[in-house]
Amino acid sequence: MPNNPEKKASAKIGDMPKEEFRKYGHEIVDRIADYFENIDKMPVLSQIEPGWLSENLPENAPLDGENFSSILDDMDRLILPAVTHWNHPNFHGLFSTSTSSVGIFGEMFSAAYDMKAMLWRTSPASTELEPVVLDWLRKMMGLPPDFSGIIYDTASISTLHAIAMARERIDLKIRENGMSGRTDLPLLRVYCSEHTHSSIDKAVILLGLGQRSIVKIPANEKFELDHEKLSEAIRDDIAAGHLPLCVVATIGTTSSTSIDPVEKIADICERNNIFLHVDAAYAGSAAIVPEFQSYFKGWERADSIVTNPHKWLFTPFDLSILYVKDKDLLKQTFSLVAEYLKVAETVTNQMDYGIQLGRRFRSLKLWFVMRYFGQEGLIARIREHCRLARLFAGWVDESENFEMLAPVPFALVCFRANPSKIEDLDALNEKIMNDINASGEAYLSHTKLNGKLALRLSVGSIRVERRHLEKIWDLLNEHLNAEIANH
Amino acid sequence: MPNNPEKKASAKIGDMPKEEFRKYGHEIVDRIADYFENIDKMPVLSQIEPGWLSENLPENAPLDGENFSSILDDMDRLILPAVTHWNHPNFHGLFSTSTSSVGIFGEMFSAAYDMKAMLWRTSPASTELEPVVLDWLRKMMGLPPDFSGIIYDTASISTLHAIAMARERIDLKIRENGMSGRTDLPLLRVYCSEHTHSSIDKAVILLGLGQRSIVKIPANEKFELDHEKLSEAIRDDIAAGHLPLCVVATIGTTSSTSIDPVEKIADICERNNIFLHVDAAYAGSAAIVPEFQSYFKGWERADSIVTNPHKWLFTPFDLSILYVKDKDLLKQTFSLVAEYLKVAETVTNQMDYGIQLGRRFRSLKLWFVMRYFGQEGLIARIREHCRLARLFAGWVDESENFEMLAPVPFALVCFRANPSKIEDLDALNEKIMNDINASGEAYLSHTKLNGKLALRLSVGSIRVERRHLEKIWDLLNEHLNAEIANH
Repeated sequence: MPNNPEKKASAKIGDMPKEEFRKYGHEIVDRIADYFENIDKMPVLSQIEPGWLSENLPENAPLDGENFSSILDDMDRLILPAVTHWNHPNFHGLFSTSTSSVGIFGEMFSAAYDMKAMLWRTSPASTELEPVVLDWLRKMMGLPPDFSGIIYDTASISTLHAIAMARERIDLKIRENGMSGRTDLPLLRVYCSEHTHSSIDKAVILLGLGQRSIVKIPANEKFELDHEKLSEAIRDDIAAGHLPLCVVATIGTTSSTSIDPVEKIADICERNNIFLHVDAAYAGSAAIVPEFQSYFKGWERADSIVTNPHKWLFTPFDLSILYVKDKDLLKQTFSLVAEYLKVAETVTNQMDYGIQLGRRFRSLKLWFVMRYFGQEGLIARIREHCRLARLFAGWVDESENFEMLAPVPFALVCFRANPSKIEDLDALNEKIMNDINASGEAYLSHTKLNGKLALRLSVGSIRVERRHLEKIWDLLNEHLNAEIANH
Repeated sequence: MPNNPEKKASAKIGDMPKEEFRKYGHEIVDRIADYFENIDKMPVLSQIEPGWLSENLPENAPLDGENFSSILDDMDRLILPAVTHWNHPNFHGLFSTSTSSVGIFGEMFSAAYDMKAMLWRTSPASTELEPVVLDWLRKMMGLPPDFSGIIYDTASISTLHAIAMARERIDLKIRENGMSGRTDLPLLRVYCSEHTHSSIDKAVILLGLGQRSIVKIPANEKFELDHEKLSEAIRDDIAAGHLPLCVVATIGTTSSTSIDPVEKIADICERNNIFLHVDAAYAGSAAIVPEFQSYFKGWERADSIVTNPHKWLFTPFDLSILYVKDKDLLKQTFSLVAEYLKVAETVTNQMDYGIQLGRRFRSLKLWFVMRYFGQEGLIARIREHCRLARLFAGWVDESENFEMLAPVPFALVCFRANPSKIEDLDALNEKIMNDINASGEAYLSHTKLNGKLALRLSVGSIRVERRHLEKIWDLLNEHLNAEIANH
């Protein structure tokens, strides 16, 4: 029995007593520290069956409050087994997450202050820190000062705002008059490569442009948008009376991290007065590394660029940045001020720059990350991820039983097993991937490249080391050998 | 000098050393605990001048990493003075935030796991906990089981999804064909009251419907949508060949927490086959209190309902819930599956239900809140806020120098000073508000009601007590008396 039994929260008013906050707060910090220290030993992919967690939860919230200690017990008993560990150094699926401890510290303060950054006065700290930190990053990425940034939650929302700006820019009074009940609107067109992220499609659907507005330009054998085909498509569309609205070019596609020819695309956009949005949600972080700057050539000519520090800049989810050249256009796209939000200040009110009225204090965690690691520390970590990815790609290249399926500009390796004895390589690779994932030893994902099922190995955890890549390389070879033996 | 000088993060690879994580993690917990214990003594409104923080920040990120202790020092020196304390019990502006300690604990775990809840397999815990917790709340709010919920970040995004569903439902192939370059689309219409939140306008703009699609129905003297005028507007629109898409009814408007006649509006929507969205972003939490259920009559007939636990259910920002009747329609509105996201499971993948692909593990903090406080604890706290608001309204009613300007169904009081000696009451009340806000003693906001400037006092902090309302009542009377004396 504890000396001071904790009184149930339902038996009184107010917040958790301060002694309890300290006690459990410290306990959670220790639990998170233990989690990171032991994460190597946990299965990467949750081993539960679908439905297991739901079935183990009661059908109703408890009537009386519970002690927080019993909630913490359930974190071990119920939640942890249902977590797929994105922070595990052998999580190589999708894009690995790069969360750092200091990023978590930023989230702690942000949750405690619980500001809704809508007006300057309701959140001066967030309103003023954000542009400063985004300017730090802009300089590190080598972007000119005519770009200014704003933080949204996800790349989907950043991209949505970019294409909304493009729609506003053509001055067909869509903000005022909409697109329904009109006969004066040409078909509006958005161009991107067939490798562009699905968030473009979702944004176009949401904006009322419809899927037929999207023109998917074929890519070349290296998965880069074919700029000549883009040029033709635009020419044909204009001839048909359609109106080109926006081109989305990607630096670091999700499938293979391929790089569209941004310089050439910028030429085409300039010539035709089309809004250019660059999706660098994943790869943007690599622009801080001097020797990778060449991959980003031409992006300074874009109208907007999205990059996600929550992907690869050691910042917990969510924090996506949209850099735009014309911030007034962004404001004009959405700004609406209700009476209860009217204030006299001539300051920036962040609510004027997007669909969300309130915003979390997200710049704080990025500020922590940039200061704690410093420019050199950030560069070194990104560089190391890319070095490890190339190292792994080298093992693939040297192996008789595996082959590379795409170049490795950043830290994603697309490859497959191709032993001479087995014919259905898609089925083989899918089985190897599923078996490894199911084992919990490591996690890979897949994509289709030139009609072939490719395994995707992403290197991005802050905890990843050479030994983790050796481990998955061994796993891949073991599983392949077992398949060959069983063949 | 410390015994073990900390090595700069830029001088090595990997995350913060585990000893540092524990040390600083504990320190942050203690700082947050101190913050809540001393928050009463801080100025509610940040006392900095615009630009002060920006000017005190360096122009570039440091090259080398910094010790975390110096970052923490700057939290005191630079950030804290720039924080407007939403958690202060005398923050009565906008809607007070109700963040609880256990909610912050939820954010700590969520940041540490850093899951992106897109596929079931990448986040079983989030995918399965969310519907269970939302079902707990659905039952507490007295909604029937044909509603199922999904968590978004803000009410703006929840509402956007609701109206997108309405647009998808009319089956004019807008998802596929869009609205541009067509001549077959009638003018689509969205109806709401003149007191509806600006997020409706933003959603309609974003969806490409345009501001002219919005029909603002006048409200009566109690700020409730006039259902007869709604009926007329719909009849006239149909006669003119327009297509009514959606009606937004509000329970608890932002200006005055007025309540639209949802039953009558539901009748009209049913008769005309129109999608009904109910905005209960603020007031929805009060539906858990049995004696307030009558305010929500008819909302069970809506197609969708938004409610924000981050407003008034002790959950840190951000966590907004959209309850919908037809979850398949929501899926149909946005679902798109790229190759690298294709998996074999026949499970729910949360990415199919919205514009954002990844989602934070937000249900965890709500689970903590519902378990720690229990149903009874949550009800007691909401009830107490409403009791305190009515108490304050009573003081206003009894005073010769103040008057009420709106009913108080929940925990917001709209009132103003109206001393007999002063004529320009708008100027008087604005001055009193500005002076009190500038003093840092308390924070109020304002709105316009029936052409009069009304002061808004929101009661919602988990730390608010009778003494805090007595304090602001004293302040109001002192400032008014000074104005009268100077008149």
